Amino acid sequence: MNVKLKPEKYLRYLVPLHLFGARRTREILNQNPTIIPLREDSKEVKITVYDYNATSIEVHELKDVTECSRFLGSETISWINIDGIRKADVESLCNYFGVHPLVQEDILSINQRPKMDDIDNILFCLLNMLYYNSEKNTVEQEQISIVLGNNFVLSFQEDANRDVFNSLREKMKLNNSRIRQGGADYLCYTMLDLIVDHYFLVMESLGDQIEDLEEEVVRSATQRSLAKINQLRKELIVLKRNMPPVRDLINGFIRSDSDLLDDRSTKYFKDIYDHIVQANDLSETYRDMMINMHDLYLNNVNLRMNEVMKVMAIVTCLMAPATVIGGIFGMNFESFPWHSPYGFIGAVAFMLFVPIVMLFVFRKRGWF
Amino acid sequence: MNVKLKPEKYLRYLVPLHLFGARRTREILNQNPTIIPLREDSKEVKITVYDYNATSIEVHELKDVTECSRFLGSETISWINIDGIRKADVESLCNYFGVHPLVQEDILSINQRPKMDDIDNILFCLLNMLYYNSEKNTVEQEQISIVLGNNFVLSFQEDANRDVFNSLREKMKLNNSRIRQGGADYLCYTMLDLIVDHYFLVMESLGDQIEDLEEEVVRSATQRSLAKINQLRKELIVLKRNMPPVRDLINGFIRSDSDLLDDRSTKYFKDIYDHIVQANDLSETYRDMMINMHDLYLNNVNLRMNEVMKVMAIVTCLMAPATVIGGIFGMNFESFPWHSPYGFIGAVAFMLFVPIVMLFVFRKRGWF
Amino acid sequence: MNVKLKPEKYLRYLVPLHLFGARRTREILNQNPTIIPLREDSKEVKITVYDYNATSIEVHELKDVTECSRFLGSETISWINIDGIRKADVESLCNYFGVHPLVQEDILSINQRPKMDDIDNILFCLLNMLYYNSEKNTVEQEQISIVLGNNFVLSFQEDANRDVFNSLREKMKLNNSRIRQGGADYLCYTMLDLIVDHYFLVMESLGDQIEDLEEEVVRSATQRSLAKINQLRKELIVLKRNMPPVRDLINGFIRSDSDLLDDRSTKYFKDIYDHIVQANDLSETYRDMMINMHDLYLNNVNLRMNEVMKVMAIVTCLMAPATVIGGIFGMNFESFPWHSPYGFIGAVAFMLFVPIVMLFVFRKRGWF
Amino acid sequence: MNVKLKPEKYLRYLVPLHLFGARRTREILNQNPTIIPLREDSKEVKITVYDYNATSIEVHELKDVTECSRFLGSETISWINIDGIRKADVESLCNYFGVHPLVQEDILSINQRPKMDDIDNILFCLLNMLYYNSEKNTVEQEQISIVLGNNFVLSFQEDANRDVFNSLREKMKLNNSRIRQGGADYLCYTMLDLIVDHYFLVMESLGDQIEDLEEEVVRSATQRSLAKINQLRKELIVLKRNMPPVRDLINGFIRSDSDLLDDRSTKYFKDIYDHIVQANDLSETYRDMMINMHDLYLNNVNLRMNEVMKVMAIVTCLMAPATVIGGIFGMNFESFPWHSPYGFIGAVAFMLFVPIVMLFVFRKRGWF
Amino acid sequence: MNVKLKPEKYLRYLVPLHLFGARRTREILNQNPTIIPLREDSKEVKITVYDYNATSIEVHELKDVTECSRFLGSETISWINIDGIRKADVESLCNYFGVHPLVQEDILSINQRPKMDDIDNILFCLLNMLYYNSEKNTVEQEQISIVLGNNFVLSFQEDANRDVFNSLREKMKLNNSRIRQGGADYLCYTMLDLIVDHYFLVMESLGDQIEDLEEEVVRSATQRSLAKINQLRKELIVLKRNMPPVRDLINGFIRSDSDLLDDRSTKYFKDIYDHIVQANDLSETYRDMMINMHDLYLNNVNLRMNEVMKVMAIVTCLMAPATVIGGIFGMNFESFPWHSPYGFIGAVAFMLFVPIVMLFVFRKRGWF
Repeated sequence: MNVKLKPEKYLRYLVPLHLFGARRTREILNQNPTIIPLREDSKEVKITVYDYNATSIEVHELKDVTECSRFLGSETISWINIDGIRKADVESLCNYFGVHPLVQEDILSINQRPKMDDIDNILFCLLNMLYYNSEKNTVEQEQISIVLGNNFVLSFQEDANRDVFNSLREKMKLNNSRIRQGGADYLCYTMLDLIVDHYFLVMESLGDQIEDLEEEVVRSATQRSLAKINQLRKELIVLKRNMPPVRDLINGFIRSDSDLLDDRSTKYFKDIYDHIVQANDLSETYRDMMINMHDLYLNNVNLRMNEVMKVMAIVTCLMAPATVIGGIFGMNFESFPWHSPYGFIGAVAFMLFVPIVMLFVFRKRGWF
Repeated sequence: MNVKLKPEKYLRYLVPLHLFGARRTREILNQNPTIIPLREDSKEVKITVYDYNATSIEVHELKDVTECSRFLGSETISWINIDGIRKADVESLCNYFGVHPLVQEDILSINQRPKMDDIDNILFCLLNMLYYNSEKNTVEQEQISIVLGNNFVLSFQEDANRDVFNSLREKMKLNNSRIRQGGADYLCYTMLDLIVDHYFLVMESLGDQIEDLEEEVVRSATQRSLAKINQLRKELIVLKRNMPPVRDLINGFIRSDSDLLDDRSTKYFKDIYDHIVQANDLSETYRDMMINMHDLYLNNVNLRMNEVMKVMAIVTCLMAPATVIGGIFGMNFESFPWHSPYGFIGAVAFMLFVPIVMLFVFRKRGWF
Repeated sequence: MNVKLKPEKYLRYLVPLHLFGARRTREILNQNPTIIPLREDSKEVKITVYDYNATSIEVHELKDVTECSRFLGSETISWINIDGIRKADVESLCNYFGVHPLVQEDILSINQRPKMDDIDNILFCLLNMLYYNSEKNTVEQEQISIVLGNNFVLSFQEDANRDVFNSLREKMKLNNSRIRQGGADYLCYTMLDLIVDHYFLVMESLGDQIEDLEEEVVRSATQRSLAKINQLRKELIVLKRNMPPVRDLINGFIRSDSDLLDDRSTKYFKDIYDHIVQANDLSETYRDMMINMHDLYLNNVNLRMNEVMKVMAIVTCLMAPATVIGGIFGMNFESFPWHSPYGFIGAVAFMLFVPIVMLFVFRKRGWF
Repeated sequence: MNVKLKPEKYLRYLVPLHLFGARRTREILNQNPTIIPLREDSKEVKITVYDYNATSIEVHELKDVTECSRFLGSETISWINIDGIRKADVESLCNYFGVHPLVQEDILSINQRPKMDDIDNILFCLLNMLYYNSEKNTVEQEQISIVLGNNFVLSFQEDANRDVFNSLREKMKLNNSRIRQGGADYLCYTMLDLIVDHYFLVMESLGDQIEDLEEEVVRSATQRSLAKINQLRKELIVLKRNMPPVRDLINGFIRSDSDLLDDRSTKYFKDIYDHIVQANDLSETYRDMMINMHDLYLNNVNLRMNEVMKVMAIVTCLMAPATVIGGIFGMNFESFPWHSPYGFIGAVAFMLFVPIVMLFVFRKRGWF
Repeated sequence: MNVKLKPEKYLRYLVPLHLFGARRTREILNQNPTIIPLREDSKEVKITVYDYNATSIEVHELKDVTECSRFLGSETISWINIDGIRKADVESLCNYFGVHPLVQEDILSINQRPKMDDIDNILFCLLNMLYYNSEKNTVEQEQISIVLGNNFVLSFQEDANRDVFNSLREKMKLNNSRIRQGGADYLCYTMLDLIVDHYFLVMESLGDQIEDLEEEVVRSATQRSLAKINQLRKELIVLKRNMPPVRDLINGFIRSDSDLLDDRSTKYFKDIYDHIVQANDLSETYRDMMINMHDLYLNNVNLRMNEVMKVMAIVTCLMAPATVIGGIFGMNFESFPWHSPYGFIGAVAFMLFVPIVMLFVFRKRGWF
C-alpha cells in the first residue's frame, strides 16, 4: 500500500501546489547580481535618438550604435534610448560617451540593486520599472539604466517590446512643452518621475488584490485564501526590495553637487523624493495589512472548525443519556419494577425529556 | 445541491460582510498622489479675505479669484482662504502671488503625503485635517494647503461645507488678540496649531471606541468584536500615515532659516512640535493596545469554546460507564449471577454511583 | 428567552469586568494636552518660599502669590513652591518673574508630555512625578513644572496634599548641606534627581507585582491572572510614556549652554541621565517579561485544558470496547455459541481485560 | 471541599514552582541604583598594591587604606585594588586621590548601569564582571569600578573571595611582560579586556545550556523544559542589560581625548570594542534561538497531544459501528429476519468487518 | 516499567534527533574570539608568492616564510598567500613586514567577527569565506585575513586544501589583465570582491533549499519539515552574522584616507559595497520567508489534524442516534407498541434515515 505516491487523494484537502507558487519563490530569491555572463543578448534591439533643443527636434531610429557617435559634443540635447541590451552595443556606445567600465558592467548586469553613481563627470542610475502582471498576479521588473552626461542622456531598457517612456515622447514632440525648455537633467528627472509614478499604479493593482482577498477571507476562508495571502506577501517583498534603494537613489541626486544638475532641478528631484517616500510608507501599510489578514484567516478557519466540533460534541452528548436509559430498560432482570403498559412510552418520553432539559441548560449558558 | 450560492446559511456564524469594511480597505490603500486629473473641480467655492494689521481689519467675501490681485504687495497682512478647489482658480491665484508651478501641482493633487517646502521665498505646507465620522466610525481626511509669503497667507481647503478655521476667525476680529499683533508667520502657526490640536479630538473619539470595544471583548467576545478590532486597526493606519510626516513638516518650520519666519516664532512651532510628537506617541500606544485586545479576544473566544468542549466531554465521559453497566446486564446469558429482586435497583444505583465517584475525582483534581 | 440580558450566568466563567479595568484604559488613552480650560482651579493652595544662601535661610509660608514679588532680584536664592494650581496665581507669579506666556500655558495644561524649554533666559521643564497606588495597583501621575531663573526656582505641583520635595526641605535647613552651598541650578538638579529616583521605587512596586503574578500564573493560571497581566501591561504604558521624554529633557539640560547652568553642574545632570537611561532599560525588561508571562499563561491554561480533554477522551475510549462486548452478548439470536454457566463472568472479565490491555499500551507509548 | 488549598494534587501536572524561579525574577527586576544606604559594608577587605615600572615591581598587602597615601604622586605606576567595599575605605582612598564625590557615590552604589565618566582629569568606569553559577544555572554579577588617574589605577571589587584580576597579577610579575612596559592606561585596558573576555566564557556556558535544552525539547518536551526555557530567557536579560552599556563605555574610552590615554592605546580599546560588539551580536543570536526553541516546544507538545487525541478519536469512532450493530440485533422484535444458526457469528463478523474497512479508508487518506 | 528509557517507541512520532542538529547549534553558538591558544597549527602549509608589475610576473612556491623577506621593499607588487596557519609562520612573516602585534593576534584568532583596521600604515581586514556544504546542508566558514601594505599584499587562509583565489591567479598570469595594471590596492579589492561574490552563490544554494522546503511543506508537512525549517533558520544566522560586519568593513575602505588606497579605487570598493548591501537585504528576505514558512507549516499541520478530528467527530455523531434507536427497541418492556412483522426493518430503516438527514443538514451548512 503506497500512500505517499498518491497525493491526489490527500490533496483534496489541500490546495493545488502551483497556487503557492514555489517557482515564484525561486524567482524572488534568485538575486545574484554578479554573474554577468548569464545575460543573453536580446534578439531585438531598437535604438532611437531624440536630438532637441527648445526650438527644434530631430527624431532618428538608428540601426547601429556606431551611428550615435555624431551626437557626442553637439550643442543640442541628445537622448539615446536602447531597447534590448547587447553586450557589444552597450560597450561601444558607452566607450564613445566616456562611460566608466564599472558603469558598463552595471548596465549589463542583471538583478542589480537600484543604485546611483557619480563617476568621471557622469551621473549614472539603475533602477527597476515595475509592471503588474494581471494574469499571474505577480509584480514584474524591468531593469532600466540611465546615464546623464553633458548634454546627453543614455537610457537602456531590457525589453524591446514595451517602452516605459512612450508618454514622454509625445510631450517631447510639442515645441512649447516644459521638457523641451529644460536641459538634460530635466529629461533625466522626467524619466525617473515616470518610473516612480508607475510604482503607484502597480501598488493600486496590488491594493485591489488585497481588497478582494480580504472579502474572500471574511466570507469563506479556504486553504486557497492562505495560498493567495502567501503569494501576495511574496509580491510585497518585490516592492520592499525596490522602494528604499530608489529612495536613496533619488536622495543621491538631491545631495549631488555635480555640475550636470542645475540648482533649480533640486526641487524637482525633491518632488520625486516625496513620492517615493509615500510609496514606501504605503508598502509598509500593505505589509501590516497582510499580517492582519493572516490573523483574520486563522481566526475564521478556527471559528468554523470550532463551530463544527461544538455541534458534534453537543449532539453526541445529548444522545448519551438516551443510550443509558435504553441500557437501563434493556437489562435482563426478571424482577422489573414498572411493568405497566405505559412503561415503554414513559421510557421513550424520558429519553426525549432529558436531552431537551440539557439543551435548555446549554442554551441558557450561551454555549451555542 | 449548490452550497456555495447560499452563504446566508453559513454566515449565521459569521459577521455581516460590510462590518469588516473591505471597501474602507480600498479607501485606505488607494493612495496614489500622482494622478492629478482625477480631482474634480468642486461645485462650490468660497473665497474669503482677511486683510488686517494690529489696528484695523477688513473682511471680504470675493466672487472671483481675480479680485485677489489687489492684496498683493500691500503693507497689511492678507489671509486669502479658498474653500473648494478649482484648477483654474488655484492656478490664477498662485500665479498672481508668484507660487511655483510645482507647489500648484501639490495643491491640486489628492492623496498627497504631508510635506513642507521652501521654494522661491515662499513657504508651502500641505497636510490633512482629520475628522472623526461618528456614524461610520472612520477617520476622514481633508487636504489643507497653506502658502506663507511676504505679508500674505493663502490657504486651500477641499470641502466648502466645513471650515477648519472658523474659531480662528472669531479671534481675529478682536482688536487686541494675539493674532492681530503677530505677522503672517504667526497666522500660519495658529493655523497649523489648530489642525494639530484637532488630531487629539479625533484620537479621543478613537480612544472612546477602544474603551467600549475592550469592555465588549471582555464581556462577550463575538466575531463582531473581531470585525471592530480590524476596523479600528485600519483607522489607526490613517493616524500613523499622518503623524510622522506632520512631525517632519513642523520640524521643517523650526529648522527653516527663511526670512518669512520671525526668530521668535520658532518657540511657537516648537510648541506644535511637542504636541505632534505626543500625538504620535499616543497613536503608538493605541496600536499596542489593539494588539493586546486582539490577544484578549482570542483568549476569551478560546476560553468559552474550551468551557463548552470540556463540559461536553465530561458529560459524555460520565455517561459511558452507565452504558457499559446497562450493556453488562443486558447480555442474554441464561445463567445470570444475581437474579435477586433487587438486582435492577442495584444495577441502576451502581450506574449512578460510578459517575458520582468520577465527578468527585474530577472535581478534586480541579478539572472543572 | 433573553440570554444576552443575563450575563451574570455566563460570567461565572469569566472575570468580574472591573478587573480588566476598561475605565483605566480611558484614563491612559485620554491624553489631550490642548484643552486648557478643562483644568479646574484646585481648592487648596499652599505657597512656601525658601530664601537661602550658604550661610542663612528664611522659610516663609505665604497666603498670596502677590507677596512673592519681593524675592525677585535679591542676591539670595529663592525657591517658591506652589502646591495646587490656580490659573490666576500661576499667571501673576509668572508675570512677576518674566516667564513667557507659552510656559505659563504649559504649566496650566494637563496631560502634557514631559518637555524642557529655554525661553527668554529662563529654563523650564515639565515632567510627571509617578506614584504607585497600592490599592488600585495603578501608577498615578502628578504633573510637576520647574522654572529655573537667575537666583530663583519656581516649582508647581498639582496636588496640595502630597509634596514631592519634603525630603529636600529637611536637607535645606542644614547649614552645611551640599544644597545650601550650590546655586539655583543645583537646587533644580536636586529636584529632578528626587523625581527620577522615585521612578525606581514605583518600578520596584511594579516588579513585586510582576513577581507575584508570575508565581500565580505558574501555580494556577486563571482568567483573573490574564486580567492582571493586561492591567500590568497598561501600567507599563504609563512608564513607557514618561521615560524617554524625561531622558530627552535631562539631555536638554546637559547640552544646554544657558548661563543659568554652571559648567560644573553638567556632571550632576549626567548622573540623572544615567539613572533615567537605566530606568528606561528596566521598563523595557518589564515589557519583555510581561510578554513572556503571557506566553506562560497561555501555555499553562492550554496544558490544563489538554490534560482534562485527554483524560476524558481516554476514559471514553476505554469504555467503548466494553459497550461493544455488552452489545455482542445482548443480541437476541436464538443460537448462542456459549451457553456455558461461566459465559457471563467470562464476558465481564473480557470487558475488563480489553481496557486494561489498552491502558497498558497507552501507558507504554507515553500517552498519559 | 477546599480544592484551592491542595495544590499539590493539581501540581502533579505542573512543574515544581521553584523551577520557574520567581525569586530569580525579583533579583533581575530589582535594579534600583539610587538607594545607597542599602549596601552593607563587606566583612572582609583585602587591599593589594602593585607599584611598578618597566624595571622594578613592589607588591604590598596593606591593612588599612590610609597607608595608600604614599603611592600618590610617585613616578612609578601604582595599582591599588580593593576587594570588598566599605564606605569609609572608599571615601578616604578616593579623597586622597582627588576622586570626585559623584564617582565615590557610584562606587558605593549597587545595581548601577555600566558607565564611563571623565571628571576632574580622572577617568572612571563601572561595569559588571559576569560569572556563570553552574549550580543554580544563573548569571551572577559582581560590580567592578576602575579609576584611572595620573600614574595610578584604583580598582574596587565587591567580593573579597574571588578576584578577577589574578591572571593579570602573574603577568605583572614578569619583568619583560607587555604590561610592565605600558603605562597606567595600558593596565586599565588589560583589566577591561579581561572582564570582556570573561563574558564569552559565560556565554559559552549558556550556549551549552541552550544546546542541552534543545536536545531535551526535541526528545521529550515537558513542562520542565518550558520552565528551563523561561529561566534561560531571564539569564539572557542579564546579558542584554550588560552588553550595550559596556559597548558604550568602551566607545567612551576610544573617543576620549583625555591626557591620561596615550594615542597608541586607542587601538587596544578598539580591540575590546570589536569583542564586545561580537558578544552583543552573539547574545542577540541567543535570544533568537530561545524564541525558536519556544516555538519548537509548543509544536512538540501540541504534536504529542494531537497524536493522543487522534488515536482516541479513531478508536472511539471505530467502536461506534459495532455498538450500533449490537444494538440492532439486540432489539426485542418478535419477527426477526435472520434466525439462522450463523446469525450470531455473522453479526460479530460484520462488527469486525466494518471497522476494518474504516481503518483501511482512514489509512488510505493518510489520517494516521 | 521504565518508559523513559525506551524513547525509540515514542520517537516513532517524532523525528530522528540528529535532524534537528543540536550539534550544529553548538557550532553556531560557540563564538569565542579570545581563546587564541585553541587554534592548532595546521599540518600543511602552502606559501605562494606572486611578484608582478604591469609587464612581468614571477610565481614562487616557497617552503619557508623566511624566504619572503626578499620581497619587502621591492618596486614590484608582491602578493604572498599563506594556505594553512601556523603561529610561528604568521609571526615571523608579519614581523618582516612590520605588521602590528594586535593584527597578528587577529590573524591567529578563530571565530573573530569580520573587521577592518588601519594600524601603522597597514590596512588589515579579516572576514569569512562562506561555503555551502551540500552534504550536511550547512554554511561553512573559512577565516581569511588580508594585509595591504606598500606594494605588498599578505593573505592568510585557514584551509590548505581549498583556495579561494584560484580564479584570480588565472587572470593574473595574463599580461594585459586589469589586475596587472592596478596597484596593490586593486589586488586587495579583487580579493574582497571575489569573497563577497561567493556569498551570493551560497545564498543561491540556500534559496534552492528554501524553495524545495516550501514545496515539501505545502505538499506534506511532517515533523521532518519542521526540523528542516529549524535547520535553515540556523544557517541564516551564519549569514546574518557575516553580512553587516562585512558591510562595515567595506565601508571602512571607502571612508579610509590611507595613502595605500588610490583615489580611483574608491569606486571599486563602492561596487562591492552595493553588492554586500544587496546580499544583506536578500538575507533579510530569506529570514522573512522562513517565518512565513513556519506559519504555513503550522497551518498545514493543523489543517490536517482538524480534518481528521472533524471526520471522527462526525462519524461518531452520526452513529449515536442509531445506538439510541437500538437501545429503545432493546428495552425489555412487555407491552411493546409495534409488534408488527415490519418493526425490525422499520427500525433499521429509521436508524439509517436519521444519520442521512443529519448528513444532509451538515453538508448544507458547509461543515465538511
